[in-house]
Amino acid sequence: MKILVINPNTTETMTTKIALAAKTAVSSGVDVFAVNPHFGPESIQGYLDEALCLNGLLKLVYQNTNYDAFVIACFDDTGLDAARCLTNKPVIGIGEAAFHMASLISNRFSVVTTLPRSISAIEHNLDKYGLAKRCARVRAANVAVLDLEHSGSDACLKIRGEIRSAIREDGCDAIVLGCAGMTDLAKSLQIEFGLPVLDGVACALAMAESTARLGLQTSQAGAYSSAGQKIPKDWQPCSERLTA
Amino acid sequence: MKILVINPNTTETMTTKIALAAKTAVSSGVDVFAVNPHFGPESIQGYLDEALCLNGLLKLVYQNTNYDAFVIACFDDTGLDAARCLTNKPVIGIGEAAFHMASLISNRFSVVTTLPRSISAIEHNLDKYGLAKRCARVRAANVAVLDLEHSGSDACLKIRGEIRSAIREDGCDAIVLGCAGMTDLAKSLQIEFGLPVLDGVACALAMAESTARLGLQTSQAGAYSSAGQKIPKDWQPCSERLTA
Amino acid sequence: MKILVINPNTTETMTTKIALAAKTAVSSGVDVFAVNPHFGPESIQGYLDEALCLNGLLKLVYQNTNYDAFVIACFDDTGLDAARCLTNKPVIGIGEAAFHMASLISNRFSVVTTLPRSISAIEHNLDKYGLAKRCARVRAANVAVLDLEHSGSDACLKIRGEIRSAIREDGCDAIVLGCAGMTDLAKSLQIEFGLPVLDGVACALAMAESTARLGLQTSQAGAYSSAGQKIPKDWQPCSERLTA
Amino acid sequence: MKILVINPNTTETMTTKIALAAKTAVSSGVDVFAVNPHFGPESIQGYLDEALCLNGLLKLVYQNTNYDAFVIACFDDTGLDAARCLTNKPVIGIGEAAFHMASLISNRFSVVTTLPRSISAIEHNLDKYGLAKRCARVRAANVAVLDLEHSGSDACLKIRGEIRSAIREDGCDAIVLGCAGMTDLAKSLQIEFGLPVLDGVACALAMAESTARLGLQTSQAGAYSSAGQKIPKDWQPCSERLTA
Amino acid sequence: MKILVINPNTTETMTTKIALAAKTAVSSGVDVFAVNPHFGPESIQGYLDEALCLNGLLKLVYQNTNYDAFVIACFDDTGLDAARCLTNKPVIGIGEAAFHMASLISNRFSVVTTLPRSISAIEHNLDKYGLAKRCARVRAANVAVLDLEHSGSDACLKIRGEIRSAIREDGCDAIVLGCAGMTDLAKSLQIEFGLPVLDGVACALAMAESTARLGLQTSQAGAYSSAGQKIPKDWQPCSERLTA
Amino acid sequence: MKILVINPNTTETMTTKIALAAKTAVSSGVDVFAVNPHFGPESIQGYLDEALCLNGLLKLVYQNTNYDAFVIACFDDTGLDAARCLTNKPVIGIGEAAFHMASLISNRFSVVTTLPRSISAIEHNLDKYGLAKRCARVRAANVAVLDLEHSGSDACLKIRGEIRSAIREDGCDAIVLGCAGMTDLAKSLQIEFGLPVLDGVACALAMAESTARLGLQTSQAGAYSSAGQKIPKDWQPCSERLTA
Repeated sequence: MKILVINPNTTETMTTKIALAAKTAVSSGVDVFAVNPHFGPESIQGYLDEALCLNGLLKLVYQNTNYDAFVIACFDDTGLDAARCLTNKPVIGIGEAAFHMASLISNRFSVVTTLPRSISAIEHNLDKYGLAKRCARVRAANVAVLDLEHSGSDACLKIRGEIRSAIREDGCDAIVLGCAGMTDLAKSLQIEFGLPVLDGVACALAMAESTARLGLQTSQAGAYSSAGQKIPKDWQPCSERLTA
Repeated sequence: MKILVINPNTTETMTTKIALAAKTAVSSGVDVFAVNPHFGPESIQGYLDEALCLNGLLKLVYQNTNYDAFVIACFDDTGLDAARCLTNKPVIGIGEAAFHMASLISNRFSVVTTLPRSISAIEHNLDKYGLAKRCARVRAANVAVLDLEHSGSDACLKIRGEIRSAIREDGCDAIVLGCAGMTDLAKSLQIEFGLPVLDGVACALAMAESTARLGLQTSQAGAYSSAGQKIPKDWQPCSERLTA
Repeated sequence: MKILVINPNTTETMTTKIALAAKTAVSSGVDVFAVNPHFGPESIQGYLDEALCLNGLLKLVYQNTNYDAFVIACFDDTGLDAARCLTNKPVIGIGEAAFHMASLISNRFSVVTTLPRSISAIEHNLDKYGLAKRCARVRAANVAVLDLEHSGSDACLKIRGEIRSAIREDGCDAIVLGCAGMTDLAKSLQIEFGLPVLDGVACALAMAESTARLGLQTSQAGAYSSAGQKIPKDWQPCSERLTA
Repeated sequence: MKILVINPNTTETMTTKIALAAKTAVSSGVDVFAVNPHFGPESIQGYLDEALCLNGLLKLVYQNTNYDAFVIACFDDTGLDAARCLTNKPVIGIGEAAFHMASLISNRFSVVTTLPRSISAIEHNLDKYGLAKRCARVRAANVAVLDLEHSGSDACLKIRGEIRSAIREDGCDAIVLGCAGMTDLAKSLQIEFGLPVLDGVACALAMAESTARLGLQTSQAGAYSSAGQKIPKDWQPCSERLTA
Repeated sequence: MKILVINPNTTETMTTKIALAAKTAVSSGVDVFAVNPHFGPESIQGYLDEALCLNGLLKLVYQNTNYDAFVIACFDDTGLDAARCLTNKPVIGIGEAAFHMASLISNRFSVVTTLPRSISAIEHNLDKYGLAKRCARVRAANVAVLDLEHSGSDACLKIRGEIRSAIREDGCDAIVLGCAGMTDLAKSLQIEFGLPVLDGVACALAMAESTARLGLQTSQAGAYSSAGQKIPKDWQPCSERLTA
Repeated sequence: MKILVINPNTTETMTTKIALAAKTAVSSGVDVFAVNPHFGPESIQGYLDEALCLNGLLKLVYQNTNYDAFVIACFDDTGLDAARCLTNKPVIGIGEAAFHMASLISNRFSVVTTLPRSISAIEHNLDKYGLAKRCARVRAANVAVLDLEHSGSDACLKIRGEIRSAIREDGCDAIVLGCAGMTDLAKSLQIEFGLPVLDGVACALAMAESTARLGLQTSQAGAYSSAGQKIPKDWQPCSERLTA
């Protein structure tokens, strides 16, 4: 089985970090590849970035026809519905994956994301998925996405402070990390705080592998039907295989 | 006051039709201009088209700095949140405008849109806006968007049939037409069926004029803040003015 | 076009203030008249006042047949459904108008009203309209309605304090002023706080003008049907015209 | 214990019928009195009648100070919130009572009311009370309220037909009769259809007696506080006692 | 009329206290009996206890065939749906009874229960019943259930502190005590805090008496149908009568 | 990794069928064991059976300490919350697993279960999980659970008929099979109907493996905390290992 993880921003260090986390989340025999577009925003912070990364992201879904499942590695799950119109393979967003999985091991989770401007998009997603009821609160740690790539930043300190507030104030019993760039922090934070801390990248890979193994595909019977979709002319499917 | 109506697809006959409807919806002294992007999908039918029209749509919002308000003339309100990050002028979607206005003159409305594949996007919007409660049902007349541009098609017949079903089955007391391409049909359908039939283009123009006249602007205090937004390099603001 | 604004309480200074705000909210060529009943409560503070003003309010709607639209200038939107059974002209409440318009320029608004006893009626309306989802919180500034008529009171100070709390605590990006008597404060508060501050009177006038201009009428196809309505005997329609 | 049942319309035969049902619903030792206003609509059919009966209804609540509980015998629960501002005694609406009681003995109930125009008011109440979730559907039997007073009408036939449809189509396991005028039909319909059929008058009397016996009073700590309420001058409290 | 109150835990002092409260809540002529199982958890604190008390609880419902109504005296309403499959007599939970009754005399109530671990079960019930909308907040006083049986404990002190917080922070206008063991505290707390304080035991007895007196039975027309239910072999119906 | 699947009824042929499906749903290297209690109901059809199987089910969770995850193979997810109080290993219900997974590959699913009496329990679960929004409708095929064990029954015919109705009437784009006994039907029905057909057993196994592999455990920070739980005396943990 081959899964393609698409980081929809252009920051390659982040893609590398995501790839690392992704590979540890699947069972043996599953090959994971991670890519990012070569044009578009270098981080996804809010509605505008979400819109501007779509072209690059969707082109990658369309061109890479020989994968068994796709993961969109942006916590806002940008482009998820559109990507599902391009393939009948499962396409899993890291936001939805984390929400669904947190619902299986906790009563109510809080989300800790990067900047306040991302809160409402995440709240809209939770509402759309139906899982707003399971979320105690969406919080922002006031950390820019790219600060997570700089070892010297105080990003982790701020995230830990926000988790502490969530545990004290929200009545939650699990934490969801609300950015793909936090993927390397989940395990140590889980140990430090003594409650489940979920990373969407790992959750999405597990979900992608699961749906593919069970023979489940994106439904073609409704809004995701690819019948009659008009594909941009410059999106030639890519026959050659990516190297892991 | 100057309002820019953006048809996010590339079909110019549709832009012309929208412009005509738009101009009759504003009070005297308001100048209305209508444009469409020169690249992207020729009609917006479902999630993929919604995503692929964004670049052209958003560039038009960004470049046209000397307007007092913007209208996005696609019933799915695609790009609405992203456009609001590009300007502090009001940006009104024709879908939301119709839903809000229908709520002021009826108890519960039904929506009649084009293809079944558009239903779930409209339902998501209604839910996000909070107005799902006011909507009895979203229906599709099984009409392709571009059929509305061809005088010989049976599009209008199908739409009338679907309105008849809505009145009989849904318990609604108003109808919202769910596509910009239906903008020329509302008045005669309202007379034929004897209940309010709302066209989003007219509603959005009235709302755009209203917000602008009252001095209301898109809030910069939350998710729509333009602070720190990264604009693509090839989006030069356009100093010259469009001709009406 | 002629719009009748009805202040449902008997305080004439408030009617005058409302008239002033109303006239600035419409486009040129629209005539605005404001009236109040000659009997009933002098201010609307809670459920009992809401009920007791209805007779005077509804009589005014019924008798004034030569208007193109009506505005009910009480933030609780009292009598709105009943008034819609008396005319097929648009009848707009200042509460609903402010909620709908705030939804077009912000993600989530907070309401600042007068007394705590009014909070639950406003919350019920938000819920009924479907817009509770868009409202972060309904707050009371602990100001009696008639204090807003006395220049020496500390009403404005308290309102500003409550707005400050809303911005700090609610995660809102717009403020709705929750009383017709605050209509003169919106513009300066908007400048002071740097985010949209909405006055329902202005919003309702804009909506009333809009619906009337677009040829939209209160639906007669459902609960608002005037067919068979029993009108009190002493409600003679008034043929003479009010002076502006 | 003394309970006052107020029929808010002026039809005395209906008051008599309500009184009869009310007296059989309380335990021994509870005195039940039933009254109606001497002015106002003769039946409550829709929003306008609801508004116009309020003055007479509320005056009766205010003047009759020596009762232990009040019942408002209109299925729309008109004036309920306002009446609660006039007394700290329990005030129970027959609509809410039926909804709450049906929730205790069934999973999901359907409502069968008189005219279609009453449906939306009942749906708003269900939503406001929180019990919309428990209601499968609100149906109208197309029966005018006063037809229920005429033995020769086909009212009962239509109601039975609507109950039959509810059982077949709605997935409900109880029926709530949606009009005070149907109070005499519940028991025989319950036997005929073999599932619980609830009459709001009986339910409300039981609830009124229960709350009063338990020493529970309408809360004065929030929106129902009578502190500072302005009472109309012509509402003198009535010292003399009604005769049963 | 005879009502059986079942305390689903094995603590007899609690059963005695519940019986005392229960008897004062019914009208004269109603006989109240209280029992508890002889095996199972000695207090119900959370989901596991809820599950483990079911066998004893349900056996008591099944065996005691000569009662007119049943009350389950655990605030989590554990076993309520299952018990309703065993009898067509009304079965009332003390949680639901308190929520419904609080909804009749207040706008919004807060619940004060024992341990934090019980909060989510109560929230789920409120949501299932539809009454979450009426509940401001579910709070825990950090009191173990059995501490309520020991006169020397600081249980009452903690409960009073939590009520004080609820009144100050929640915007509620009534308090529901969230444990059968608090049944003896309601009246004095109501006097101390000057707002309605509801005890579920009293509310449930009143509701049980009411439904039985009105001839209402648990519906057999849906999920509670006893047709075809498989009864454990060792549950012989009990012909002898309990002594009060 | 070792996963224990518990069929909470006593029908061993069903356990065998579940075991077969379960083993094909995990990746290589995962050992799956399936058990059922030796006492309790032979099938779970409605609330009473749900309650009566709990003792046997929970004892099996408690005693089998050397598993990495548990699956409860009853579509009503009975005992799920209680089981989570007995172990910090993931415990996954087949109902919730199917709902979550269906949400990842479709817009809206319909459920086809066995008997009508099971509908409301499933609806309550969907509501509690937050996923009611994703479910178009819960349907019953009028098939007794044990009929699924008899090759000669018309069970499959009825299920296919109900799926056909769901596709035609519900606007769903996936089907969830609502009974563990249907686990062997999913793959062929998926091919026959050309849209995703989900079996909860397979979904739950995949979820159980996923959570365990990612190091996620049932949260001990809230309602599922095992601290202070009182375990029945006859539940000795079982040191010996089950044979696959």
